[in-house]
Amino acid sequence: MKAEKAATPIRRASIGARRNPASQAAILAAARAVLAEDGYAGFSIDAVSRRAGAGKPTIYRWWKSRADLLMEVYAAEKARIRAVPTGDLGRDLTEHTKELWAFWWGTPSGRTFRALLAEAQSDPDALAALREKFLPERLLDVRGLFAAAAARGDIPTEEIEARLALYIGFNWFYVLTDQLEAGQAAIPVAMRLIAASSRS
Amino acid sequence: MKAEKAATPIRRASIGARRNPASQAAILAAARAVLAEDGYAGFSIDAVSRRAGAGKPTIYRWWKSRADLLMEVYAAEKARIRAVPTGDLGRDLTEHTKELWAFWWGTPSGRTFRALLAEAQSDPDALAALREKFLPERLLDVRGLFAAAAARGDIPTEEIEARLALYIGFNWFYVLTDQLEAGQAAIPVAMRLIAASSRS
Repeated sequence: MKAEKAATPIRRASIGARRNPASQAAILAAARAVLAEDGYAGFSIDAVSRRAGAGKPTIYRWWKSRADLLMEVYAAEKARIRAVPTGDLGRDLTEHTKELWAFWWGTPSGRTFRALLAEAQSDPDALAALREKFLPERLLDVRGLFAAAAARGDIPTEEIEARLALYIGFNWFYVLTDQLEAGQAAIPVAMRLIAASSRS
Repeated sequence: MKAEKAATPIRRASIGARRNPASQAAILAAARAVLAEDGYAGFSIDAVSRRAGAGKPTIYRWWKSRADLLMEVYAAEKARIRAVPTGDLGRDLTEHTKELWAFWWGTPSGRTFRALLAEAQSDPDALAALREKFLPERLLDVRGLFAAAAARGDIPTEEIEARLALYIGFNWFYVLTDQLEAGQAAIPVAMRLIAASSRS
């Protein structure tokens, strides 16, 4: 994703801090494997270090915490899902939500995402990273759907934040209560309300 | 009749399992004090036991986990906020949300609530308690607002679940990202959309 590339200061980093693509990929693959096998409970920099055959200092040089590493693993997986506006915000949101839920449901990513949100409740650094980097990057596509609808005049620009919050919260409610199957029926209704062309 | 006596649980319970209102109140007060002073990070049955001068077995007899005790502390505090339908769902939801956020913001309850949601991501018992007991009880009032609106014909009955999920998720998003101040502006727009009298 563009935002991720822009956020990786490869050029400006010192040689020591520069990411070696091969070991970086090995560490991310090890992190994914640890998550898939042991879930978040068994996920630690120690476990990833053993699995990757990489020293902990190497891992910590690139990711400053377990949450940081988790966020990058999640981001790489999530990049598979893209949302492109078709001209109908309600339909676009419905399709994107179904894709997102299938992704959460069918991969360890749902549990990873829940773990990240949980981690952010007790670790201020994780919360700051979630709010200021992770969420803005992950939500670029969805924000684009709302921006396109506003550009078409379908929704007021000044309501994008509130509608986006409704969208995010709706998904969080179902994933955090582990009700992604039962919640399917609510998706079209909720997305229609979020996309409604109301002006007060 | 013997059968009737047998059906009265108080008679059958041992004295030990019966809740003693005075020590129960002392334990809940101690739990509140520990939360207020040390937050969720310092919250443990050990700490509550020391503070209340009550044995851990006594606490565990009444609450089977830290999450259980937290949920009861939270519920007692939250009971101060009531929602009564006035005939305008959008207005009722807006008022209730503002009260809820002020409660989360102005007491340790906001942090307690976030801790409960976090706990439920790693503890299946806590998740089950959250989903099957805690949330249905805490949401009775809000569900009543939606039911009243449906009874008036303002919203379709079959859309209550989706609208309630939007309502819950919106609040969760702002409390879990610790943005209750910045999010204020989004409340009226979001509640108007959730309360919209749309039918497809």
